[in-house]
Amino acid sequence: MENLTYYCPTKILFGKNQLDTLGNEIKSYGNRILFVYGKEHLKNTGVYDRIVHLLKESEIEWIELPGVVPNPRLETVQQGIEICRKEKLEFILAVGGGSVSDTAKAIAMGVKVDYNIWDAYNFFHSNLLHQPKELPTKYLIPDDALPIGVVITKSGTGSEFDLTSVITNTELKEKLIIMNPVIYPKFSFCDPTLTFTLPRDETAFGIADMMTHYFEQYFSPTHDTDFLDHVKEGILQTIIVNAKKALENPTDYAVRAEIMYSAAWSCSALNITGVIPEWTSHFIEHEITAMTDLNHGCGMAIIYPAWMKYVIKELAEKCAQYAEKVWGIERKGRSDLDVAMDGIHRTEEFWKSLGIPSSLSEAGVDSSLFPIFAKKAVRFGPLGSLKNIEEEDVLNILSLCK
Amino acid sequence: MENLTYYCPTKILFGKNQLDTLGNEIKSYGNRILFVYGKEHLKNTGVYDRIVHLLKESEIEWIELPGVVPNPRLETVQQGIEICRKEKLEFILAVGGGSVSDTAKAIAMGVKVDYNIWDAYNFFHSNLLHQPKELPTKYLIPDDALPIGVVITKSGTGSEFDLTSVITNTELKEKLIIMNPVIYPKFSFCDPTLTFTLPRDETAFGIADMMTHYFEQYFSPTHDTDFLDHVKEGILQTIIVNAKKALENPTDYAVRAEIMYSAAWSCSALNITGVIPEWTSHFIEHEITAMTDLNHGCGMAIIYPAWMKYVIKELAEKCAQYAEKVWGIERKGRSDLDVAMDGIHRTEEFWKSLGIPSSLSEAGVDSSLFPIFAKKAVRFGPLGSLKNIEEEDVLNILSLCK
Repeated sequence: MENLTYYCPTKILFGKNQLDTLGNEIKSYGNRILFVYGKEHLKNTGVYDRIVHLLKESEIEWIELPGVVPNPRLETVQQGIEICRKEKLEFILAVGGGSVSDTAKAIAMGVKVDYNIWDAYNFFHSNLLHQPKELPTKYLIPDDALPIGVVITKSGTGSEFDLTSVITNTELKEKLIIMNPVIYPKFSFCDPTLTFTLPRDETAFGIADMMTHYFEQYFSPTHDTDFLDHVKEGILQTIIVNAKKALENPTDYAVRAEIMYSAAWSCSALNITGVIPEWTSHFIEHEITAMTDLNHGCGMAIIYPAWMKYVIKELAEKCAQYAEKVWGIERKGRSDLDVAMDGIHRTEEFWKSLGIPSSLSEAGVDSSLFPIFAKKAVRFGPLGSLKNIEEEDVLNILSLCK
Repeated sequence: MENLTYYCPTKILFGKNQLDTLGNEIKSYGNRILFVYGKEHLKNTGVYDRIVHLLKESEIEWIELPGVVPNPRLETVQQGIEICRKEKLEFILAVGGGSVSDTAKAIAMGVKVDYNIWDAYNFFHSNLLHQPKELPTKYLIPDDALPIGVVITKSGTGSEFDLTSVITNTELKEKLIIMNPVIYPKFSFCDPTLTFTLPRDETAFGIADMMTHYFEQYFSPTHDTDFLDHVKEGILQTIIVNAKKALENPTDYAVRAEIMYSAAWSCSALNITGVIPEWTSHFIEHEITAMTDLNHGCGMAIIYPAWMKYVIKELAEKCAQYAEKVWGIERKGRSDLDVAMDGIHRTEEFWKSLGIPSSLSEAGVDSSLFPIFAKKAVRFGPLGSLKNIEEEDVLNILSLCK
């Protein structure tokens, strides 16, 4: 186990009818807020009306910023920053999935700095994340942010309980990440009933997304991780058992609750600390979604097994443990490699059974773009902690996803 | 799964050499501190000297409150409150196990109220914990506390990462609990190397203590708890695999780290929320230790299996799941009851193998006290959420522990 600092001050309000206290939670931070959300879906499902009613009841004034899209855009962030400054807003409420929450986080930091908030994403992604020997002298990580709160309506990213935001710059065709404790949401409402009306494919993609978050910290080069391994194995079993049920019976509260709680912890400090992460697949996938607008969870479900196969030599022992513990595959008398490959196939079959495309061509991604993805994926340096991944390796992994 | 509010603002600094930043962590809260600890053990192991060196280095002034004992005393708490007030101290540093941390929490609240802090424990334990239909109008839960920080040297209670404090009033022979978010430690240093020198029995008792914390939220009447169940099953497996190794090779860092991290989460909001707890065994055990000074973990290892057997009808299904998932006991073709009993026996054998007494007589507790324990255990009302436990039931459970 690696040394770790666990710090996660977000208050999670989980369960049905918890939302009734939304006004009170907001009022500890301010009375004038930015209300960020996505598409019309929120209005069709009645969630919009419910939020508006709760805000009025608590005499909270709000300005709306609708139109956040998956792979959320820097333009929307910049609009939000402008509104918050002009209207002197005190708090940001994000209602939706990870894209809405990530947008709110970006706005929250952007309001507090005198430079373009994109520079902070660029700084973190290109420098801190790749741990260079020397850090640039100009340090562009905001040390303050407007307080934000989240009402989650789509489970998968874990953005409701983490310090991360991912934003896409459509002009540069770049999708960059920042991690910063100042953007932990002050609170996140997780009401499983709000996910009852989610389209089938969004439920499925969310499930793939949260699973890969656990995978990326499980298939790590760090040894001696019994506690962390067994916790993750338990959560992965939970997701697998409940995923199909959620698709078959989308209004089953107990099932939606298991999925929603599993998602909440998927990028939490419990999952991501104590190990060296292995985020190769995420970085490759980000290049694809930055250019094609593929759904992120869908992309992860295609890339991740390809990466697993590509690094199978380094992965065999741990992957055999995964196959046994999560899928109940018998290990006795078999090589780790054999058992590991069974584990990978079971994962692929599982995602296929949820209706997730199993190749990039099936997902509509043109293979002529592969060289561009590969070049961009390693532009800040090689990827990988378990195995070093250069441009050529990325191309090889992508060719396994054809 | 029950509705839950997860909120846990403590920063955990886990791993070797993390302690070097102790001074910095304290200085965010103050420069004049109370340094609470237990016995001479701290001086013999060099931890005392290390702490003193770190405090001096950061120019932090301290006053010492040594002498905290297991089942920590109200007298020590009152001494601490007096010192903090007289010396206008700004912060409390607890160095030791759960008793030291619980003492620090009590002092931290006591400094801020104009009544005897024992009244707050009595209020919480007799009222809130037993969820009466009507609450008393005079509300005695402190809404503020001095900030505290913890350096853990003994794993088991989970006090380093929870909102709980248990204090013993030797005059009244009462041991009462309070839960209050204002006493979450600001930070807790968990350095596995600090547990290398623990006496063998304290390691073993700590292991039983943390296991029963997981049990009491696992064997709950709440249904539909896949996530919570599987996480707890994973952690219990971790503890079981590493316990014997910790006794055989007490300076194995990786093993001590697994035990220490498992302990840290054992009373955390991850473990205790989302379910109706079943704390019958704890309340019975508290009456024993309030009068006899038996080690708490030792007492729990004796009472818990007796309670399990006593409520086996209500427990059978969940206990069969436990037996299968944690101990790998085959369920096919067998009744839940059979499998459950195997699970209980395996638990008893496991604790015995760690050298823990398996009966109250072996632990030196006189059975003539049983009627007093039973009367006191139910003095605020019957116990139990899975099964209602009256005075006679407590006596029956105790007779199973003879």
